[in-house]
Amino acid sequence: MGKAKFTSEDHIYLQVAGGIEQMIAEEVLRIGDKLPSVRVLSEEYGISMGTAFQAYYHLEGKGLIEARPKSGYYVRFNHRRFPAVPNVIQPEPVTSEVTVQEMIMRILRDIDAHDMVNFTLAAPALELLPAAKLNKSVVYALRNGKDHCIGYENTQGNADLRKQIARLAFNWGGKVRPEEVVITSGCMEAIVLCLRAVTQPGDTVAVEAPAYFGIYQVIENLGLKVVEIPSDPTTGADLDCLQQVINDMPIKACLLVPNFNNPSGSCMPDEHKKKLVEMITRLNIPLIEDDIYGELYFGRHRPKTCKYYDTKGLVMHCSSLSKSLAPGYRVGWILPGKFLEQVSALKMMHTISSPTLTQVAIAHFLSIGRYEYHLKNLRKALHTQCLRYIQGVMQYFPEDTKISRPQGGFVLWIELNKKVDTYKLCLEALKHQVSVAPGRIFSNSCNYSNYLRIGYGSPWDDKVEKGLKTLGNLVKKMM
Amino acid sequence: MGKAKFTSEDHIYLQVAGGIEQMIAEEVLRIGDKLPSVRVLSEEYGISMGTAFQAYYHLEGKGLIEARPKSGYYVRFNHRRFPAVPNVIQPEPVTSEVTVQEMIMRILRDIDAHDMVNFTLAAPALELLPAAKLNKSVVYALRNGKDHCIGYENTQGNADLRKQIARLAFNWGGKVRPEEVVITSGCMEAIVLCLRAVTQPGDTVAVEAPAYFGIYQVIENLGLKVVEIPSDPTTGADLDCLQQVINDMPIKACLLVPNFNNPSGSCMPDEHKKKLVEMITRLNIPLIEDDIYGELYFGRHRPKTCKYYDTKGLVMHCSSLSKSLAPGYRVGWILPGKFLEQVSALKMMHTISSPTLTQVAIAHFLSIGRYEYHLKNLRKALHTQCLRYIQGVMQYFPEDTKISRPQGGFVLWIELNKKVDTYKLCLEALKHQVSVAPGRIFSNSCNYSNYLRIGYGSPWDDKVEKGLKTLGNLVKKMM
Repeated sequence: MGKAKFTSEDHIYLQVAGGIEQMIAEEVLRIGDKLPSVRVLSEEYGISMGTAFQAYYHLEGKGLIEARPKSGYYVRFNHRRFPAVPNVIQPEPVTSEVTVQEMIMRILRDIDAHDMVNFTLAAPALELLPAAKLNKSVVYALRNGKDHCIGYENTQGNADLRKQIARLAFNWGGKVRPEEVVITSGCMEAIVLCLRAVTQPGDTVAVEAPAYFGIYQVIENLGLKVVEIPSDPTTGADLDCLQQVINDMPIKACLLVPNFNNPSGSCMPDEHKKKLVEMITRLNIPLIEDDIYGELYFGRHRPKTCKYYDTKGLVMHCSSLSKSLAPGYRVGWILPGKFLEQVSALKMMHTISSPTLTQVAIAHFLSIGRYEYHLKNLRKALHTQCLRYIQGVMQYFPEDTKISRPQGGFVLWIELNKKVDTYKLCLEALKHQVSVAPGRIFSNSCNYSNYLRIGYGSPWDDKVEKGLKTLGNLVKKMM
Repeated sequence: MGKAKFTSEDHIYLQVAGGIEQMIAEEVLRIGDKLPSVRVLSEEYGISMGTAFQAYYHLEGKGLIEARPKSGYYVRFNHRRFPAVPNVIQPEPVTSEVTVQEMIMRILRDIDAHDMVNFTLAAPALELLPAAKLNKSVVYALRNGKDHCIGYENTQGNADLRKQIARLAFNWGGKVRPEEVVITSGCMEAIVLCLRAVTQPGDTVAVEAPAYFGIYQVIENLGLKVVEIPSDPTTGADLDCLQQVINDMPIKACLLVPNFNNPSGSCMPDEHKKKLVEMITRLNIPLIEDDIYGELYFGRHRPKTCKYYDTKGLVMHCSSLSKSLAPGYRVGWILPGKFLEQVSALKMMHTISSPTLTQVAIAHFLSIGRYEYHLKNLRKALHTQCLRYIQGVMQYFPEDTKISRPQGGFVLWIELNKKVDTYKLCLEALKHQVSVAPGRIFSNSCNYSNYLRIGYGSPWDDKVEKGLKTLGNLVKKMM
């Protein structure tokens, strides 16, 4: 930060803050960079610790830097050129049969190709996951699991794992008993079982838009119809609109991702969640809550879940460890509330039970506190990556690009100039070894044709930067 | 066998055979007992090896003993009091909505209770499975699998595992390419995916009766209707009847267990399989073939599969390792023929992919030849158990009891006097710490109310014997 001495004690903190602000503006300090500790700052500038604190408070108040729990201060953004957030699109609130999207298959086809820069996945890079420590838990399970984990596991799931999942619910204030947990093969099976438990083919389900394409696919595949509820990139599903839709047509279930929606990154404020649960309780409509990103928050506190506000067992809470610990272990769960029996029977019919070994290993990993420890590191890494990717998009994309401000999760939701067809852009990008998801696959109404989802699960490096630069250049060419 | 010397060489083999036959009749030698080797026999009786062979050939011809490949001669049965096989029941060939069977839940509820003698499971006792060797393959997978197996696996399944599954098809003469295999979470998921790939809710599926109750449950649950095809306890589904049913109503798929059907133990002769596949090919009806017990044959050769005779890709072959290697690993597969694309898409929507670690471990276990080695031992053990259990039922059950003659698999299908309601019997048995499956749960037409399925997956011991004795006494009381 360079050394300097101040003679006047008056407003010294403003001078220090101003210096830092200038460095941010000139991109000497970039988004995600860690700032010196308060102690180091006070020593470098020859000021008191209190004054150093004051400088950081001032910059935090301006939104330029932020404190991260137990980690220190980080550059948050350069507000002089920060772009607008993407617009909300109002989907037509009419029932429509979901159609299979060939686009998805095309985009996913080459995703594993060698040398591909992959912005398509909404998942952490494997280097961010604690594989070696997890291996130890597997070896533990082989040695200590009943019959070396070779036998069938209970249909509802391993008892120790269900205890740990119940414990995990403490993080959002949940009081869950192990008997209320059903272990699944990832969150996708959780959602399938929930949908099958509360709907029949031909029924209509309310889903926010934009939403993860897998959700539309599974709904179509189960012979269900979908109504899209518009979702704000900051606060999530529009509850007034949802109420209107429920008034207008027979909705058999709602399926929402309240925390860090994929792709918009929105996080429904807790008071909205409360209101939402009151609404569905009044109308006796089950709510399937996909909370797969809930633990990956960047702020000081984990956002609550809808399940937290559930008094009648109507919220079916779904989550998994696929986005936060071990995608390949396929360990997810449901807190199905009053639908426990139906969900368990369906689990039995679908797969009898989930594998024993992975359940016992994960239960051990969680029980010795390694998951919480890992999460702390993962959250920090993702937060930094998020900010760094935003900066990259700002640097290489056209001026009128709009970018979401996720407060958790893995993805940026980007709105480009209306002239840009992002599906064409994605096909073009594939030719340049860059894979990215076009907006249209996140809706069932052909909206978002100028939107793009960029996953920031991979740590920032030259390859990523080059990939974003390539994308930005392609966008500019298409305008 | 006692020492003896023969002076006349004429018909000495008949004298030796006669002595052994008497020992079998008097139950000095019991079903499943191993006979001395030909060499030992020749030494003991002071006869030539040729004469000793002749004696065994003679007894084998009479059906009293049998040669098992690479193992020697075993007592097969005591034909003087061997019971009849159960009768075929002709189900009414009318479409009926499958109803949920509370019986199943009741029977399964206490299955894990302490001290229960468990005849309900159609699975091997865990002590028959090679847990320690499998552990080594898991450790191998942790060390050598890509990214320590923490990442998502391919939706269709691990490439090495698919190679091994293709290789396994050699056992029944199949020529399968790894690209034609889809890995599933056990055989149950395989069947669900196949049914969903070729049917819509409201469609009708032909199923043999009796059949595993899980098949009826899943069919009901998918909103499908079922037509039952009568099945002979020796030769399996009645093909003339199937042809008639197909002529009479729109059948969208057939679901059969041609090899060692659960519960009847029937094995469809290979020429029937050929005829069956020709029939469904002519009529363009997909056949879902559940071959989960196919490797567990007691004879010299593995029975063929329907898939072997498939020329048009209409046979969807399903199997798993849950009954032969590791129930808790949940590794099954489909050879879906022409429905590969639909099945893969459904797999993606249901669970994204199966767990990576278990797939890599099983691939390794198979690749080093350990599965084939294990199967040889398992087949021998099951064959012995089968014969020993038959003997036990003969000893403790009433004279008029009829017993199936399975040539593979895990279960005996037992017909009792018509006066005996086996569901009541099962509830009564539970009070005596004996769990067994009543016949009625294996059909959708309230048939088999005096039938019983006894699993012989557990090695014979005093507890098993006591359990059979208890059951036999309860049956006698109910007559």
